[in-house]
Amino acid sequence: MSGNIFGRIFRIMTWGESHGMALGVVIDGCPAGLELNSIDIQKELEKRRPGQSLATTSRKEPDTVEILSGIFQGKTLGTPISLIIRNKDVDSSKYDEIKDLLRPSHADFTYLKKFGHVDWRGGGRASGRETVGRVAAGAIAKKLLKTLGIEIIGFTREYGGIRAESIDTNEIERNEFWCPDSAQVAKMRERLKKVKDEGDSIGGIVEILVKNIPIGIGEPVFDKLSSNLAKGLLSIGATKGVEFGTGFEAARMTGSEHNDPFIIKDGIVIPASNHAGGMLGGISSGKDLTVRVAVKPIASIAKEQHTVNMKRMEETKIIIEGRHDPSAIPRIIPVCEAMTALVVVDLLLLALSSRVENLKKLGFG
Amino acid sequence: MSGNIFGRIFRIMTWGESHGMALGVVIDGCPAGLELNSIDIQKELEKRRPGQSLATTSRKEPDTVEILSGIFQGKTLGTPISLIIRNKDVDSSKYDEIKDLLRPSHADFTYLKKFGHVDWRGGGRASGRETVGRVAAGAIAKKLLKTLGIEIIGFTREYGGIRAESIDTNEIERNEFWCPDSAQVAKMRERLKKVKDEGDSIGGIVEILVKNIPIGIGEPVFDKLSSNLAKGLLSIGATKGVEFGTGFEAARMTGSEHNDPFIIKDGIVIPASNHAGGMLGGISSGKDLTVRVAVKPIASIAKEQHTVNMKRMEETKIIIEGRHDPSAIPRIIPVCEAMTALVVVDLLLLALSSRVENLKKLGFG
Amino acid sequence: MSGNIFGRIFRIMTWGESHGMALGVVIDGCPAGLELNSIDIQKELEKRRPGQSLATTSRKEPDTVEILSGIFQGKTLGTPISLIIRNKDVDSSKYDEIKDLLRPSHADFTYLKKFGHVDWRGGGRASGRETVGRVAAGAIAKKLLKTLGIEIIGFTREYGGIRAESIDTNEIERNEFWCPDSAQVAKMRERLKKVKDEGDSIGGIVEILVKNIPIGIGEPVFDKLSSNLAKGLLSIGATKGVEFGTGFEAARMTGSEHNDPFIIKDGIVIPASNHAGGMLGGISSGKDLTVRVAVKPIASIAKEQHTVNMKRMEETKIIIEGRHDPSAIPRIIPVCEAMTALVVVDLLLLALSSRVENLKKLGFG
Amino acid sequence: MSGNIFGRIFRIMTWGESHGMALGVVIDGCPAGLELNSIDIQKELEKRRPGQSLATTSRKEPDTVEILSGIFQGKTLGTPISLIIRNKDVDSSKYDEIKDLLRPSHADFTYLKKFGHVDWRGGGRASGRETVGRVAAGAIAKKLLKTLGIEIIGFTREYGGIRAESIDTNEIERNEFWCPDSAQVAKMRERLKKVKDEGDSIGGIVEILVKNIPIGIGEPVFDKLSSNLAKGLLSIGATKGVEFGTGFEAARMTGSEHNDPFIIKDGIVIPASNHAGGMLGGISSGKDLTVRVAVKPIASIAKEQHTVNMKRMEETKIIIEGRHDPSAIPRIIPVCEAMTALVVVDLLLLALSSRVENLKKLGFG
Repeated sequence: MSGNIFGRIFRIMTWGESHGMALGVVIDGCPAGLELNSIDIQKELEKRRPGQSLATTSRKEPDTVEILSGIFQGKTLGTPISLIIRNKDVDSSKYDEIKDLLRPSHADFTYLKKFGHVDWRGGGRASGRETVGRVAAGAIAKKLLKTLGIEIIGFTREYGGIRAESIDTNEIERNEFWCPDSAQVAKMRERLKKVKDEGDSIGGIVEILVKNIPIGIGEPVFDKLSSNLAKGLLSIGATKGVEFGTGFEAARMTGSEHNDPFIIKDGIVIPASNHAGGMLGGISSGKDLTVRVAVKPIASIAKEQHTVNMKRMEETKIIIEGRHDPSAIPRIIPVCEAMTALVVVDLLLLALSSRVENLKKLGFG
Repeated sequence: MSGNIFGRIFRIMTWGESHGMALGVVIDGCPAGLELNSIDIQKELEKRRPGQSLATTSRKEPDTVEILSGIFQGKTLGTPISLIIRNKDVDSSKYDEIKDLLRPSHADFTYLKKFGHVDWRGGGRASGRETVGRVAAGAIAKKLLKTLGIEIIGFTREYGGIRAESIDTNEIERNEFWCPDSAQVAKMRERLKKVKDEGDSIGGIVEILVKNIPIGIGEPVFDKLSSNLAKGLLSIGATKGVEFGTGFEAARMTGSEHNDPFIIKDGIVIPASNHAGGMLGGISSGKDLTVRVAVKPIASIAKEQHTVNMKRMEETKIIIEGRHDPSAIPRIIPVCEAMTALVVVDLLLLALSSRVENLKKLGFG
Repeated sequence: MSGNIFGRIFRIMTWGESHGMALGVVIDGCPAGLELNSIDIQKELEKRRPGQSLATTSRKEPDTVEILSGIFQGKTLGTPISLIIRNKDVDSSKYDEIKDLLRPSHADFTYLKKFGHVDWRGGGRASGRETVGRVAAGAIAKKLLKTLGIEIIGFTREYGGIRAESIDTNEIERNEFWCPDSAQVAKMRERLKKVKDEGDSIGGIVEILVKNIPIGIGEPVFDKLSSNLAKGLLSIGATKGVEFGTGFEAARMTGSEHNDPFIIKDGIVIPASNHAGGMLGGISSGKDLTVRVAVKPIASIAKEQHTVNMKRMEETKIIIEGRHDPSAIPRIIPVCEAMTALVVVDLLLLALSSRVENLKKLGFG
Repeated sequence: MSGNIFGRIFRIMTWGESHGMALGVVIDGCPAGLELNSIDIQKELEKRRPGQSLATTSRKEPDTVEILSGIFQGKTLGTPISLIIRNKDVDSSKYDEIKDLLRPSHADFTYLKKFGHVDWRGGGRASGRETVGRVAAGAIAKKLLKTLGIEIIGFTREYGGIRAESIDTNEIERNEFWCPDSAQVAKMRERLKKVKDEGDSIGGIVEILVKNIPIGIGEPVFDKLSSNLAKGLLSIGATKGVEFGTGFEAARMTGSEHNDPFIIKDGIVIPASNHAGGMLGGISSGKDLTVRVAVKPIASIAKEQHTVNMKRMEETKIIIEGRHDPSAIPRIIPVCEAMTALVVVDLLLLALSSRVENLKKLGFG
């Protein structure tokens, strides 16, 4: 497995297995002079922490981050920032019983086939817990963006088929579903209850907005803002699709419906509408980025399922016990925000080298 | 712009502007010993070539590929393969008239803002013509996959809202829409005619299947097969979304509906169904990869549109003349196939290093 | 600073400041199935640990490595391996007094100019202590090479102008200078004593041999075995040059003197001599790799030196107190071995994809 | 072979075999707005062109560069710049006779072992002719540096043991050896004549100076200015070593001799001397970079040599005919300059992201 590094300038490397000693991340290429402390990171980790509401699992991880390098006297040094989160509430006994059984729609099978040797405790590296490192690194990216006035807002667009029809970002933190449409929360609760009662799980759609992003971010033709966001977001477990602006709906529209005309507003040229989702040719256009991510239902369910015992090489039934969320939503939202922030920061830094005159402006020559 | 390289081992670098002298690609990391000639590449270029049917533009580019390096006596040397396609039928006069006008939903605006200096002729590097290099490189990747028994099949799943309900891969090459469902072709023709008559354009959905892909391809957690496919496909102009297997529909399903149980078939363990789209944890599972790409309507339409004259800094109207396809489909299909092939080959080569024993098997130690 | 990642498949990221909480490294891309435990790593760390002999500093760091991920039941999982070494014996008081003074030939000046904000305690990230992460990662690379029968041997070729004229690798561990020529050890001791008495420091030359390296390692034209070794070795602090085989002496030789004729030995074709240092065209030839690294004298000396007070912007004198080695040799030797091992492993893994037939041999197709 | 890309932001990919159709390079990440025309590139190619003096081969290649993309109306677009140089004067007949014989100290052997299939004509990709792409790309890097006031000067420090003792850069272009010390030219001529008469070849040392380089260039701990220069320079064929500042001589010096004290000059802090060669901690210090490269004698000599016939698997003699330089010097000098320029530009662009405040200064936030 040689795939645990993300980014070209602001680069992260995450590590850790679900039931191992710890998880963490190292961030290379964070510019010097950013004010940063552990609270900035802890705050983001809290958002994805288990055991917070009925909508999430009962695993009780404090998820306390420790900053081991890269910060001195409250500011980043420009050197690598190493973050570690110790595993505390690990109980692998449930996995011991089923270690030879493939959990349907989990990655045990492909890891076993690829590596020959796997950590069968809690999904190992393929666990949702892996995302703790992403969120920790993303917190730093978000802090950097914030100092530049750029904001990232994630919320639940759909939950088990119940759709947020209106968006009031103030509502997001007021309910356990991170739903920006208060009128739909009761229906989501009902949907959740039904699913939980049946020992089942449910999917949904996350939406991410990026506000105040400057024009010019994105490096065509392969490191476009769109393509790198797609990579970042679809590298998160349980995601099944991504779309920008009108997304799949664009497939049914005509050019005259879909095109965004240009206007001059306050002396500045901008697209009047935003079907494009804030990017043209893979470069930010000055409009808000709008991205949606499809999230499948959690694979671990209480219902009996058909599978294979790999040791005996025979078909059998499996019942997965343990602590599992009924849905990856809302805990996956801060992960999506983190990946978005990481992509935007990395491409922001690359954009510095777009013009020769930038070198002169910064005193290099 | 520092984003024209794709891949980690099998790496390509594409170059060329729409109305420049030529376009091309260099491929690094292609293994030695692959039988390859210019017909293998030309064949793929023909598929995306303009001027072939009513569904495509009338620009008449022969798109003849020239192989400049990397092949000797009919086989790859292991050294970089340089491919060049000269532009022949270039007429920039139409663009001269509108060079100060922003074409709605085109990238002229963001390129201008990012670089300060742009080639306004035919979209420059942001043109669909840029994909000729991708297809040429993809042809080599496809050839390599073919020698391993792996096949990539692309087709039109939706065209202007008309959906292929059944899939008969034999039908794909029998109609101008690359539609695998012959029953829907007449409706697609009707849809196309209406759009053309109105001087408009239309979107659609491309689907890609990868057959016989071995288990174990994909490098978690960031270079997953899924995330790299998403990046590759969404780096293509005009794409607005990507999904795997059930995709966005998974968001409305329960775990018990969505999970793929494991079975033993002919002594081999495989998932019984394929909601996952052929990947588990971002690693190929042995089932067919299934990927769908949302394609927006072509931005260049004959209808009058509102926009801005950047030189005079005033709002105005624009009518875009010239030769334009009514839809990016079907010409975008070979591009999607190419990007898919490039990703699969690159991750196949990375997968060689998954286990220590592989080194011994290949005689290194 | 975006430069803390090394390698393309077997990739490491090091982190940590000299007087921070800890230092460490994460290794991505280590193949699964390698037997590994903390003793394998600790053993290498001991070699570069301070406070072991008269030839080294008196800082007493236990340098105990903790393995936080990537290993399960004694074997590598293929997932990232995170290693951490806590700082214990940190005393920054000496640095407090001189924090505004530039230490001659140290990096305080360039770090300050580059980042604006520096950790002035013990050199921060520019300290020799940074290499602890390299050695830890290198220990894993060495273990992997050892299972393939490849051996890396480092020793002192020169110490303060005293040259090892003969090489008996058994002698290396028998003296505090890692000198393979017992006849020269007494002179080295004398040289060291004189330098210490004068409060001065001294340089030297390290030589690295790689034995049993298979033919075919190295990826021209930029990722040659030679060029990547050069990068790896000259990224170590205090190094001033590198040479292969005859090295700088080759500049004075004729082709007929320098060329290595080919012969057949035991049915195998090999070069008869090894002026080339084990590489042809940047690819391993089957002969031993021979590399030499020039090491400058330690910059921290007890003698009074001329410098600048950056706060007052005035010239002044500085006396550097604290615990400093008289020479980077021998403690830099395991660091050179580590970088060599990391380069060889990385290029070994890349070499797996040299031929199409390798894919078939490993069952991919 | 997956090693033909160099750089992280300003990235080049070279391609081409010695006796193939053409050679070339594509440059990604060149900032927009640089004035550039084919003369800028041609001028550098002329310097390394064969057939110019007695000190070089008689192969008569016009080496005319064609710019195929990336430049519009005399300025770079920010898009990839594709450069191609056609092979004209190719005569492979001499190689046909010896294609089964290994040429001593050439890469035929390792290429054959690595790839199984090689282009035996003129060394294929391992030929010195490969460097034409490096020089073409380097010409663009040099032009960019020149607009920033940074100058790269290469010359012959040693030729067959004859050393330039003094440096007058005005002398460099006045003699066929690029020797900055006119007093030594006659001896070099004599040395050359003797070598040629004997059908032999000779090595030497190239020195490169970089003047006016700003402080702060280099990304520790692996992408230091020193380590990347070492990689770039030692990726050139025929090089055997590299050293910075005092280089290998530093190994025999004490700290008090070697350290460069800091002073204040015209209100600016700088090192008073430059034993370090212009870098501290791998970051440029404001002093001139000084780098020396050891160049081995050309492997192709007219004298009879011992070798192996690979087809018959028997030892034999070989006489290499054809057109060969007696020394890689001076034609290798522009190649060294090119690699130096490429490294400096790439790290200059990376240095833009060293501080958060740079983002604000350039209007991102």
